[in-house]
Amino acid sequence: EDQDKGDVWLPSLVTETPQEGFELAIKLSRMGVKSTQSDKEVLFREREKYAQNGEALIHASEVIAVHFQTVAAANNYWK
Amino acid sequence: EDQDKGDVWLPSLVTETPQEGFELAIKLSRMGVKSTQSDKEVLFREREKYAQNGEALIHASEVIAVHFQTVAAANNYWK
Amino acid sequence: EDQDKGDVWLPSLVTETPQEGFELAIKLSRMGVKSTQSDKEVLFREREKYAQNGEALIHASEVIAVHFQTVAAANNYWK
Amino acid sequence: EDQDKGDVWLPSLVTETPQEGFELAIKLSRMGVKSTQSDKEVLFREREKYAQNGEALIHASEVIAVHFQTVAAANNYWK
Amino acid sequence: EDQDKGDVWLPSLVTETPQEGFELAIKLSRMGVKSTQSDKEVLFREREKYAQNGEALIHASEVIAVHFQTVAAANNYWK
Amino acid sequence: EDQDKGDVWLPSLVTETPQEGFELAIKLSRMGVKSTQSDKEVLFREREKYAQNGEALIHASEVIAVHFQTVAAANNYWK
Repeated sequence: EDQDKGDVWLPSLVTETPQEGFELAIKLSRMGVKSTQSDKEVLFREREKYAQNGEALIHASEVIAVHFQTVAAANNYWK
Repeated sequence: EDQDKGDVWLPSLVTETPQEGFELAIKLSRMGVKSTQSDKEVLFREREKYAQNGEALIHASEVIAVHFQTVAAANNYWK
Repeated sequence: EDQDKGDVWLPSLVTETPQEGFELAIKLSRMGVKSTQSDKEVLFREREKYAQNGEALIHASEVIAVHFQTVAAANNYWK
Repeated sequence: EDQDKGDVWLPSLVTETPQEGFELAIKLSRMGVKSTQSDKEVLFREREKYAQNGEALIHASEVIAVHFQTVAAANNYWK
Repeated sequence: EDQDKGDVWLPSLVTETPQEGFELAIKLSRMGVKSTQSDKEVLFREREKYAQNGEALIHASEVIAVHFQTVAAANNYWK
Repeated sequence: EDQDKGDVWLPSLVTETPQEGFELAIKLSRMGVKSTQSDKEVLFREREKYAQNGEALIHASEVIAVHFQTVAAANNYWK
């Protein structure tokens, strides 16, 4: 737990490519979930459940979309 | 699976036309879903289900709308 | 179907007036729904259902709001 | 109906004050709902229902918030 | 009621501090709810209910987040 | 309670690093929840419940994502 707090997991929003930016958006979404529920067992159990549910999958995709807006802006859209 | 990871599926956010940008937004939405559930059988089963459900369709349309904001900004709104 | 794919339905995000921009936002919302469910019979059936449901109507209005942000920005807010 | 289509209800996004901008955001939210369900009887019935439901009220407030972002940007935040 | 309509409750989006900006975002969220349901008795009853419900609380927090984006931009992020 | 009102909990949106910005986004999400339900006992009870629910966790992550957009913009994306 303490170690987690000390970890640097987000040194920068800059990525080489749009695709790496999308991967970062996925990571940010998951870290948001983890910030509310840090118990890995519960996380895995719930992820298993909502990954079987179409509407939850759409919602998960929406969170990624919001973070991807941020990451894309941070990278000036990789232009 | 490994091959999927190596695939470049998002080389750029730039598109020729707004309509191609909209297609890219649809792709980004789907890749977001896929990042949470990579099992194609489950994906097809769930897509089949939520495609029959009006509220889920609206939610899917919302995710596309969020990604379309990003793609449109990346293309300076095709002006 | 093929014809649909070839159709240019989004040549530009530019509109003459804010109100036409709002109409375009409605169209974009519907095209997002259609991209997930292209079967017109299912679309009409589901639209009939959610048009009778207050919460679904609010959700539909939300998707239009997100697209209207994009269209308004593309038109520099018609200033 | 025809008359509705011809009506100019959104001549501009510019308002004198932030508060009038908020009123415009409310109007945009309602026009979004109306675009999906134009039957006034159904609209009144459903509005009556969701106005009695806390979660639906929060959702309605969210749509207003998204439109208010657009209107505020259009007015350069009334600065 | 009439008096409410005449009230100036949003003279400006400018605040002294980020925290006052957050308070304004809360106010905007509530005014959005009130615009759909002006009956104070119903509002209090529903607020009482959704304040006891975790998911509704998250949704209320989301509306505040959207308004806070607007207020923060209006204040150039208090930089 | 009074003390809470007097507390300065948001002196600035500026953070040293993206990761601290993410922590601030989490804090803003929680303060949004707290603004609707200030009773700590209810808050803890409800947090306990929604932390066990995958869909609520995704929704909580979404609110963080919206606030992170604001914080990231305030920090010019830490560039």
